[in-house]
Amino acid sequence: MRAAVVTAYDQPVQVQEVPVPVPGDGQVLVKIEASGLCHTDIHAAHGDWPLPPPLPLVPGHEGVGIVEALGAGVTNMKKGQRVAIPWLGWACGDCEHCRSGWETYCPQGRYTGYFTSGCHAEYALASAGFVARVPDGVDVLDAAPLTCAGVTTFKAVKVSGAQPGDLVAVFGVGGLGHLAVQYAQLAGATVVAIDRQDNRLELAEKLGAARIINSASEEPAAAVQALGGARVVIVTSSGLDSYQQALGSLKRRGTLVAVGAPKDNVLQLPIFQTIVMGWNIIPSMVGTRVELAEVLALHAAGRTTVVRETRPLTEVNQAMADVEAGRVEGRLVLDVQS
Amino acid sequence: MRAAVVTAYDQPVQVQEVPVPVPGDGQVLVKIEASGLCHTDIHAAHGDWPLPPPLPLVPGHEGVGIVEALGAGVTNMKKGQRVAIPWLGWACGDCEHCRSGWETYCPQGRYTGYFTSGCHAEYALASAGFVARVPDGVDVLDAAPLTCAGVTTFKAVKVSGAQPGDLVAVFGVGGLGHLAVQYAQLAGATVVAIDRQDNRLELAEKLGAARIINSASEEPAAAVQALGGARVVIVTSSGLDSYQQALGSLKRRGTLVAVGAPKDNVLQLPIFQTIVMGWNIIPSMVGTRVELAEVLALHAAGRTTVVRETRPLTEVNQAMADVEAGRVEGRLVLDVQS
Amino acid sequence: MRAAVVTAYDQPVQVQEVPVPVPGDGQVLVKIEASGLCHTDIHAAHGDWPLPPPLPLVPGHEGVGIVEALGAGVTNMKKGQRVAIPWLGWACGDCEHCRSGWETYCPQGRYTGYFTSGCHAEYALASAGFVARVPDGVDVLDAAPLTCAGVTTFKAVKVSGAQPGDLVAVFGVGGLGHLAVQYAQLAGATVVAIDRQDNRLELAEKLGAARIINSASEEPAAAVQALGGARVVIVTSSGLDSYQQALGSLKRRGTLVAVGAPKDNVLQLPIFQTIVMGWNIIPSMVGTRVELAEVLALHAAGRTTVVRETRPLTEVNQAMADVEAGRVEGRLVLDVQS
Amino acid sequence: MRAAVVTAYDQPVQVQEVPVPVPGDGQVLVKIEASGLCHTDIHAAHGDWPLPPPLPLVPGHEGVGIVEALGAGVTNMKKGQRVAIPWLGWACGDCEHCRSGWETYCPQGRYTGYFTSGCHAEYALASAGFVARVPDGVDVLDAAPLTCAGVTTFKAVKVSGAQPGDLVAVFGVGGLGHLAVQYAQLAGATVVAIDRQDNRLELAEKLGAARIINSASEEPAAAVQALGGARVVIVTSSGLDSYQQALGSLKRRGTLVAVGAPKDNVLQLPIFQTIVMGWNIIPSMVGTRVELAEVLALHAAGRTTVVRETRPLTEVNQAMADVEAGRVEGRLVLDVQS
Repeated sequence: MRAAVVTAYDQPVQVQEVPVPVPGDGQVLVKIEASGLCHTDIHAAHGDWPLPPPLPLVPGHEGVGIVEALGAGVTNMKKGQRVAIPWLGWACGDCEHCRSGWETYCPQGRYTGYFTSGCHAEYALASAGFVARVPDGVDVLDAAPLTCAGVTTFKAVKVSGAQPGDLVAVFGVGGLGHLAVQYAQLAGATVVAIDRQDNRLELAEKLGAARIINSASEEPAAAVQALGGARVVIVTSSGLDSYQQALGSLKRRGTLVAVGAPKDNVLQLPIFQTIVMGWNIIPSMVGTRVELAEVLALHAAGRTTVVRETRPLTEVNQAMADVEAGRVEGRLVLDVQS
Repeated sequence: MRAAVVTAYDQPVQVQEVPVPVPGDGQVLVKIEASGLCHTDIHAAHGDWPLPPPLPLVPGHEGVGIVEALGAGVTNMKKGQRVAIPWLGWACGDCEHCRSGWETYCPQGRYTGYFTSGCHAEYALASAGFVARVPDGVDVLDAAPLTCAGVTTFKAVKVSGAQPGDLVAVFGVGGLGHLAVQYAQLAGATVVAIDRQDNRLELAEKLGAARIINSASEEPAAAVQALGGARVVIVTSSGLDSYQQALGSLKRRGTLVAVGAPKDNVLQLPIFQTIVMGWNIIPSMVGTRVELAEVLALHAAGRTTVVRETRPLTEVNQAMADVEAGRVEGRLVLDVQS
Repeated sequence: MRAAVVTAYDQPVQVQEVPVPVPGDGQVLVKIEASGLCHTDIHAAHGDWPLPPPLPLVPGHEGVGIVEALGAGVTNMKKGQRVAIPWLGWACGDCEHCRSGWETYCPQGRYTGYFTSGCHAEYALASAGFVARVPDGVDVLDAAPLTCAGVTTFKAVKVSGAQPGDLVAVFGVGGLGHLAVQYAQLAGATVVAIDRQDNRLELAEKLGAARIINSASEEPAAAVQALGGARVVIVTSSGLDSYQQALGSLKRRGTLVAVGAPKDNVLQLPIFQTIVMGWNIIPSMVGTRVELAEVLALHAAGRTTVVRETRPLTEVNQAMADVEAGRVEGRLVLDVQS
Repeated sequence: MRAAVVTAYDQPVQVQEVPVPVPGDGQVLVKIEASGLCHTDIHAAHGDWPLPPPLPLVPGHEGVGIVEALGAGVTNMKKGQRVAIPWLGWACGDCEHCRSGWETYCPQGRYTGYFTSGCHAEYALASAGFVARVPDGVDVLDAAPLTCAGVTTFKAVKVSGAQPGDLVAVFGVGGLGHLAVQYAQLAGATVVAIDRQDNRLELAEKLGAARIINSASEEPAAAVQALGGARVVIVTSSGLDSYQQALGSLKRRGTLVAVGAPKDNVLQLPIFQTIVMGWNIIPSMVGTRVELAEVLALHAAGRTTVVRETRPLTEVNQAMADVEAGRVEGRLVLDVQS
């Protein structure tokens, strides 16, 4: 089968022929139809983060496809079902996090396309208990971005505590941000979207943002404060400057939800202001299986719109370059079978 | 009357004779019996923080004394009552924060001994609606530290979400920390106290800490991780290094409560680790009038111990130097009438 | 001025000429433009509830009008402003409830049109600190129902903890229910509306309900269970049978929010099922001043629709009869000046 | 082996010889050392509740003993370990409740000693994933009551939201109640204990209750209201009158946690008062595996005291009669090997 393989952090991704894997106990083999390209894949390919992945690696954790074979002991899946393979490929089920509804923080969690082989390939393996059923009527190309970008921003809105009527600022209107705008709006918030590109801001408006701010031409913190300050800021962009602007956009007792992970990583957090202004800094990392099911159900019910561009697997390097340069509207999805 | 007056940020505090103030509408005149010395007073006297106070200034916001005169329109107080004058000297009552139970974040809040004249004096003015009644049986010298150090750490434990059985790490066992240890223990937590001084750590143990760590001789983050990591870390110390150690002490999904405000102010917060480990950074600034009443009631019920040293008002500069140098056990309280 | 006066629980309401009241300290005199008719007014007029109001009484607590005169000491209002007079006419500001963001449970709370003279009159008095500013662009006839029916159902949704994607069942699609449907939808829920009248159910659908159930022809608990059970049930109807059906509609760990207060009052709550199924029964009573401002702001932003019929004050008895009989679509609003 | 077997709802429990069971896939065989007697066992034996258990039945879900054999596929347990077998004998791990930290509400949950064979026997089977490790140093006779009575009341205090300083009323000081008193106290509450027996009230005082009320001689609701009303009431007794008294004991905005399940089952809940007083009625049913581990850890740390009487298995009928009649102090534990 064909797969996109990272062989070295300083080399382009290789599209290679590799053997179709064989499902082990509790696994399913999925014939991938579409595989969303997440910024994490790029960070993985470059070894950007403190914990770089072991190589060689097939990245990709937004894989959607058809179950083609079942490993031993799999009883909850059937051949022919459409499933989505998420970032959290497996969790132990035994630790306090797993047993408290926070499997995303399982210390033994196996992250698809980072610590295990991922979905930018014609076939991928997945743990049967951790794939999501894709509801009938959900487009394959929509399902892929929902599998990580969707559930991640859905969860970010959930943990933010945003209430109907709250002003929620979303920094970055890319693959994650265009969905964050929608989930915040869905939760009743008044959404202000911040980006450096007008086309993305126009997209945000179409998707329900009440206000837009171009941070290339206007200081976003001052602009958000002029609206009264944000009760919640969700930073989906992975620019460190967005984080500093996000802090300055908060209303008293506001909450910054950290989603995007900048390469340069270190936020300068002024403690005095944090205390006196009552800023809360909270993290959000993907979501659980329950939340992924909710995200897919909301989409099946017609309550969200996925914006995405498609590219063939062979163009994965160009695709990554385009994502990095912000030349993609919404999410980029790899069509791995074409 | 005698008062301790800050006349310049780079000069010692002056103990001067000044006129006894006259209560305005809604105010009471309080004959101060005891006035706790908070780190904030020192930061105020030095102009350390981003918003330095206007001078001249009488600092002090842990003043306890007897109501001696009532301004016009005061109906909720009587002469002769013992009251405590807290940090939040007045709040508007009309903003969304005041009306939502978060008066401590009122944008118009007037902070005693910082933006208004405070309690390190023989008499002080206070808004009748914002002083606390000191319950019978509470020692005056205990009441003073509870008025800020007490309510501040009580609130910090409350917002931390600490549950019975959780490991709670308290950084710094001074005026605030020795009370934080007790409130965390009172909330059912298993408390680990961290400080650089053995005598303080011994005090923490007496007050209920299950474990102690001397950060001068042992790396506290590693030591707390060896205990399983802290669900909650409360940083009462105002050393920036304590903040960095505190981050490293957190368990997955743990919460750091920022209480102490270091002079050098800027925490280097690694975003990637924050997201991947699920760290929550939340602020806590004093507490409301309801919480101050709860703190005093808990003390009246015998559930807390206040450790303090007393000094005459005339020794205020030496007192400040001793607090800064960590030579005081618990809180230092000024006996303003002696 | 003309006013609707309850003189005896077993007599029709009298429309009488009474003197225009004079604002006392801290009060404003409001020339009423519109006054919503709440079920509470009917219960008040009949003395239905355990605490019947003292008579004679002018009911009405959804009064909107123009400030015409200011009592002594009023500084936050000006003549000519449009304001709304809510159920919570005054609260003490000093008790733990007021100071914790729960003024609606102030033991000294004065309820407009029940314990004090209300708004079904050409003029009404109100405490200046407790009236809401009606934003520009909000229709007077819309503002009235929002002042109680709106804030009550907004708060009910808020305390319910409903999250995007949750199934929320609303029992009763009258004055309160037609707004509850919208707030639940606004919070991202999938709404199922239950009523005995098809015209009301059609209205619910127009306002965003995903499903409707006519409880006259279908057993609602079974029908809601067939949809998976409701995470939240909001009972706005004041029929006791609705409460029993609501319990049966709950999903495991679901929450019933009690809003409507039936005349026959006593719910038969099976404890075993409550425990085993994890039912939460929580109350909601109007909302705070902060929430009323949020409700009005959401309407000014075009996010809610108020459905109402208008009647002249002189037809108050017929109006009450029509409300009781369910012959009104949405809220009935009295035009007190016509 | 010897086992206590319910053969008919209207007959005494039979102590019979039955075959030692053989562990199936994923199961362990436990040689029982001690088995706590819960009111549920009595309700099971009598078929009291809406869902009576199938017969014949070995009741008991507080079984502590030594792992003697492992079924196929068990990797997390070893022979010779001491474990506790709880009420929640198994849950599916796949439903939204299991995956959200609420396995206790799994619709497929298998309840030990009710729907499956339980622990009042010399040996019992259990799912390896659902037994708790008993920490070293915890007495076997203490571990048994903690396994249900402990975790149930620990969870009840947790969901109650009780904060340090809150007044918490515990109705019933038996097997559950004597632990509820301790967990509430551990969470910082001021505890008032209510019972009809002076010896139990004396026990409550020894265990930390600040106040006691004998409901045989004093009306408890009035007595609790005289203390200011309870923020939280935990009803561990299974008398319906306790529930009515508990409602009357609540402070405004207070919370009643339903734990005990009365035979006569139906609480008369006045809706008007519920709304106007802000009463919350919430359920609590045992706790999760995480909470059971916390309960055992707290006991190992010396923070709780288990009061219990021991009886041989052969006296199970007398034991039940004594529990029903309130003649037992704390929990009754069957010594199944003697």
